[in-house]
Amino acid sequence: MGIVAFTITGALAASRYQMDAVGFVLLGTVTGIGGGPLRDLLLNIHPILWIERPEYLAVCIAVALVVFFTAHLMDKRYRLILWFDAIGLALFATVGAERALSVGAAPIVAITMGVITACFGGIIRDVLGHQRSIIFGQEIYVTAALSAAVVYVVLNQFGASREVAVVAGIVIGFGLRAGALRYGWSLPRYHPTPPRAPAARERED
Amino acid sequence: MGIVAFTITGALAASRYQMDAVGFVLLGTVTGIGGGPLRDLLLNIHPILWIERPEYLAVCIAVALVVFFTAHLMDKRYRLILWFDAIGLALFATVGAERALSVGAAPIVAITMGVITACFGGIIRDVLGHQRSIIFGQEIYVTAALSAAVVYVVLNQFGASREVAVVAGIVIGFGLRAGALRYGWSLPRYHPTPPRAPAARERED
Amino acid sequence: MGIVAFTITGALAASRYQMDAVGFVLLGTVTGIGGGPLRDLLLNIHPILWIERPEYLAVCIAVALVVFFTAHLMDKRYRLILWFDAIGLALFATVGAERALSVGAAPIVAITMGVITACFGGIIRDVLGHQRSIIFGQEIYVTAALSAAVVYVVLNQFGASREVAVVAGIVIGFGLRAGALRYGWSLPRYHPTPPRAPAARERED
Repeated sequence: MGIVAFTITGALAASRYQMDAVGFVLLGTVTGIGGGPLRDLLLNIHPILWIERPEYLAVCIAVALVVFFTAHLMDKRYRLILWFDAIGLALFATVGAERALSVGAAPIVAITMGVITACFGGIIRDVLGHQRSIIFGQEIYVTAALSAAVVYVVLNQFGASREVAVVAGIVIGFGLRAGALRYGWSLPRYHPTPPRAPAARERED
Repeated sequence: MGIVAFTITGALAASRYQMDAVGFVLLGTVTGIGGGPLRDLLLNIHPILWIERPEYLAVCIAVALVVFFTAHLMDKRYRLILWFDAIGLALFATVGAERALSVGAAPIVAITMGVITACFGGIIRDVLGHQRSIIFGQEIYVTAALSAAVVYVVLNQFGASREVAVVAGIVIGFGLRAGALRYGWSLPRYHPTPPRAPAARERED
Repeated sequence: MGIVAFTITGALAASRYQMDAVGFVLLGTVTGIGGGPLRDLLLNIHPILWIERPEYLAVCIAVALVVFFTAHLMDKRYRLILWFDAIGLALFATVGAERALSVGAAPIVAITMGVITACFGGIIRDVLGHQRSIIFGQEIYVTAALSAAVVYVVLNQFGASREVAVVAGIVIGFGLRAGALRYGWSLPRYHPTPPRAPAARERED
């Protein structure tokens, strides 16, 4: 489900760049597969999920093609990207942390893997599209992935059942990101003091 | 040969950025080595080709240095990049798919690996150079790599000899990309309907 | 120590983008961990250092948070980034080459691994920040990493003690980069001949 959500965001991004159907499939699949392979490579888990079960690839391709033929029916595509991205973010952060724990990673490593799994697809989508990455947005983003992974790992360490921990992680992660999208939730950002004009800052710092 | 072609594109790109000789070697080598290591990592093939046979590195370095001293003799360097890129694209897509099949990957995975092997070097070259990636161009690009890989894998599955399948893949891949460069071949691209002014679209979607 | 230096550069970059604390940790950690995991993946060394010893992650996180609360005390943050980057560059190039030799890599591969280890963190930091990469700067950069790795590998091959080779690599690498920062040292850069107006060149080549 996280794969489907991220694939949709990649394909919708392709629609904004006015790519052809193959471009939709490429950007959709790369975003949908996301950070899972990187996590598995780092943890030395083989075979990579989509190599062992190529049907995941087929799902990405099918979803991207559906978006190609239906994207014009959707209004406000940029908002849609953000919302599907929020779903994928919460799911991948939780599942990524779970997978890392399941092969014996330390808690802090599992949390890191959750963040990598969740954020990598979106980063690749933005870097390929030559856009400033979503992680630089004003609102909470990486923090939501981090929270989902932390909640999952902490509950898991305290002996909560897998179902409870997964659901809690997803709810927290999606809730935080949804609040950010809806109400503009953000953490305090770094501001130089004393404040200087932005143009001057860019040149001098 | 694909390595040489891609190394030339990377080194020519370095000439456009007016880098020094080390920059030529860096950008040439990264582009020339391209997606092979990523494919091998994903498929858990070790050792990586250029680690086992460092002479590939030496070839990249030598070619990049030759370009450093001769690039000023070439006119229309940007067109040259595109044509050498087309050669590398067709070769890497076919060889990449072949290598994946040879370690037992499923056909759809082998096709994906062909595309990754073919496109990754160019993507890295463009991302490092802070350019919009070539995969976003108007003309057929990823499609050519995809076609080369599909042709190779299909012929292979139907029992064609290795030579026939490889040559067919390369011819199809290069032919499609050459047609794109020469005649502007392209697939239908996504356009929102009803059409709106681009400026408005950027803001609203 | 190289990790600390690179983490500081990533966190200072985050301060320039006015990110929140999580952004500091993300950009600091990614830059601080740098190219080591890529080198280990390519050489098939497992487990990756920061997975086996998560305290490295903790150091990155702590340093990034310290920078978050103290960056406003520092003047000329952009120059600071460059100097800490120079320290990390020399250390990582030498240590990266050493690690590759220690698992039996060929000298040219070890030198390449030194360059990858040293340059990757800075490249990622710049790509994520949507900046032209530091490797495209006028002054010596990759060359300094390359020299550090070459010096280490050559001394090692000639039987120098580990300490001598490491110190020589670091001194040469840092010295070259420091000279570049201080006195603008650079290698001859490629210039097309005959010279044409930059605008024309951009369009025609």
